[in-house]
Amino acid sequence: MGVLFRGIRALLPDMSIRETDVCVEGERILSLGEIPEGFAPDTVVEGKDRLLLPGLVNAHTHTYMTMFRGCADDLPFAEWLNGHIDPLEQRMTAEDCYWATLLGNMEMILNGTTASVDMFIYTETASRAAEECGFRTVLTRGLTGPEGGERRLREFFAEYEARKGRCSRVTFALGPHAPYSCSEAYLRQVADLAKEHGLGLHIHVSESQFEQTTVREQYGCTPAELLDRCGILGEKTLAAHCVWLSEADIALLAERGVSVATNPVSNLKLGNGIAPVPRLLAAGVNVALGTDGAASNNALNLFRELSFVALLHKGVTGDTTAVPAKEALRMATANGAKALGLEGCGEIRAGAKADLTVLDIDKPWLRPHTDILSSLVYCARGDEVCDVMVDGRFLLRKGELTTVDRERVLFEVDRTCRRLGLIK
Amino acid sequence: MGVLFRGIRALLPDMSIRETDVCVEGERILSLGEIPEGFAPDTVVEGKDRLLLPGLVNAHTHTYMTMFRGCADDLPFAEWLNGHIDPLEQRMTAEDCYWATLLGNMEMILNGTTASVDMFIYTETASRAAEECGFRTVLTRGLTGPEGGERRLREFFAEYEARKGRCSRVTFALGPHAPYSCSEAYLRQVADLAKEHGLGLHIHVSESQFEQTTVREQYGCTPAELLDRCGILGEKTLAAHCVWLSEADIALLAERGVSVATNPVSNLKLGNGIAPVPRLLAAGVNVALGTDGAASNNALNLFRELSFVALLHKGVTGDTTAVPAKEALRMATANGAKALGLEGCGEIRAGAKADLTVLDIDKPWLRPHTDILSSLVYCARGDEVCDVMVDGRFLLRKGELTTVDRERVLFEVDRTCRRLGLIK
Repeated sequence: MGVLFRGIRALLPDMSIRETDVCVEGERILSLGEIPEGFAPDTVVEGKDRLLLPGLVNAHTHTYMTMFRGCADDLPFAEWLNGHIDPLEQRMTAEDCYWATLLGNMEMILNGTTASVDMFIYTETASRAAEECGFRTVLTRGLTGPEGGERRLREFFAEYEARKGRCSRVTFALGPHAPYSCSEAYLRQVADLAKEHGLGLHIHVSESQFEQTTVREQYGCTPAELLDRCGILGEKTLAAHCVWLSEADIALLAERGVSVATNPVSNLKLGNGIAPVPRLLAAGVNVALGTDGAASNNALNLFRELSFVALLHKGVTGDTTAVPAKEALRMATANGAKALGLEGCGEIRAGAKADLTVLDIDKPWLRPHTDILSSLVYCARGDEVCDVMVDGRFLLRKGELTTVDRERVLFEVDRTCRRLGLIK
Repeated sequence: MGVLFRGIRALLPDMSIRETDVCVEGERILSLGEIPEGFAPDTVVEGKDRLLLPGLVNAHTHTYMTMFRGCADDLPFAEWLNGHIDPLEQRMTAEDCYWATLLGNMEMILNGTTASVDMFIYTETASRAAEECGFRTVLTRGLTGPEGGERRLREFFAEYEARKGRCSRVTFALGPHAPYSCSEAYLRQVADLAKEHGLGLHIHVSESQFEQTTVREQYGCTPAELLDRCGILGEKTLAAHCVWLSEADIALLAERGVSVATNPVSNLKLGNGIAPVPRLLAAGVNVALGTDGAASNNALNLFRELSFVALLHKGVTGDTTAVPAKEALRMATANGAKALGLEGCGEIRAGAKADLTVLDIDKPWLRPHTDILSSLVYCARGDEVCDVMVDGRFLLRKGELTTVDRERVLFEVDRTCRRLGLIK
């Protein structure tokens, strides 16, 4: 049993590309460059016109929101949130979230993504959907409090205890929602629970100017400073957004070893601005790449996100060398895996997890092949993806989904949207 | 002879979508909504899961530069231009430009684009390539002077006289390169020639801070003011970029009836910043959308450009209603046709030119179909495009190119790139 990628161009951990043979056995990459004696693959993927990447990692999303795609665009922020998204969330059932998660995971698989960190309302259906489709997910349940805070923690831990260790691809982290939606005491409580259970933390930080102002008025400090004094910031913490950071905040995040998930499209779409990604990178922060939810993107396509993160910062700093293509790709692969605590993921090397994406690079919009990584970041659309593998198992093979029933999911999503009054 | 799009959702001039029958006869749309008696189509396109758009219009590009895709990315601007792009242009032959133009036109067709305005070095090969593949193009020859200015004008007019009226899809405009690369006297001469021959004008305006400073030092005014006093600004003028504009410049462009081609990706990639698109729109300027050349984008994909123009301005102004999806789509269709002087293009209505693009909208990343225009702008990748028609003739049918020999073009592009030392 195994898969041989024969004579394929592969992206190596140093971001160089080498034509080589890659052998996969079980859940892992067995070897690179030489085919071990006795290795008898049952599937051979021919490398001609193909490029092998580590599977892309989506470092911040809310997959259940895929149900809300396109339902409230181009509106003032308050109308978007209070008039549409919040009321819809209230009416969404656990079963609705299951289908929405499958739709989102399907979209991510089709676009070469193999893992995500997901902040959910209904953890049970989210973990069931991820398990069933073979996708790798770090699940967090959005926690706000004190109001309802204890209940949310109970729900999360019930699910965590029931599921932990059951499927190695589905892991858990604690998800205190944001500095403005959790009290200081609740943040401290969650931080303590994370330490006690050895869990990571995923939180929205300094997403908007509103947050910055609110926290300053209430606590007299920045959101990052507040989180630090609550014990939230550490090496197992993944902070999403981080648009409005002071220089001191950047130094603090770097010192604490926090990872940052930048979400360029969502930050633009919600009018929140542009994160200081070049300064975060310069400070040594591990910066990963996320799409956020479909209500504020509206795609879950990391190739689109790659072009935004590589282009935006050149434009706003005037520095054409800011966030080069290789750096952007590292954010979407190795940095993402590190941010999510996915050991052995995000790189193509012997012994690593076989989370892999194959692209057909024989496309007019990627030619000539002068610099194929550059073309991936600045030109790829997502439809170049032909094979996607997680833990050595194909989720997409020759363009066909192998674990998701596409028609059934689309049917159920439409049925839900009709009930919610989103479509006729 | 004719084509019937049966029961298809079509984007109408008021940006609403209606399910209807669309009949095409010869080069034009014969009818919408009813099938005229005796109409006997030889091709029927079934409308199920399809969306019919006016063909997208690329309002600024240099298609010959598709040869340089990926050859000099993430470098300081001066090194990019003087160390790579300029020397490569010097070594490029007319025949090289022919193949590069076919590569670029092929990419645009695959992405649903039916027309472009193209600033070229070699007009003959550019017009030959466009004619052969059935693409609609407004050709301009980049004019700089006084040095070599007379020669360039002679070359342009020789080509113009030889070709004008020969192929209705290939038209011509005068292309004074930029305020900093043409002398004041040369600009005046070109403006006079445009009037004399009834030709449009296409020019780069206020692309960079460098240009702003240079013109201010030399002439004591803004680039727009300089162009105005030379007689360049008028209703048949298309100004590309317009990133660095004063409020007075915006009022001047509006008053003169100048069209603007915004190129969000190129402006970011070259570190030039973000054009004041919402203010241009508010002033009533006709704003169209362009990709610029592949050396500074690197794709010629207007779907990607649509997402940038709709998202960027929300992010930098903080206004989530800036450049809504419909406005972005109008830029890429009707506004583009107006900017290029393409009468009867850019809209789906009886009597209009049959420049049309059909998309397969049954894609997970466009579902649910809550707001399909929103999904087009915020999610579409380009591979949804299945049919493309110019002047009633299919250039793409069921995903297959009908007028371009894909393999031959890629072969010749690679051969040229090897000679230029761009690939091995």
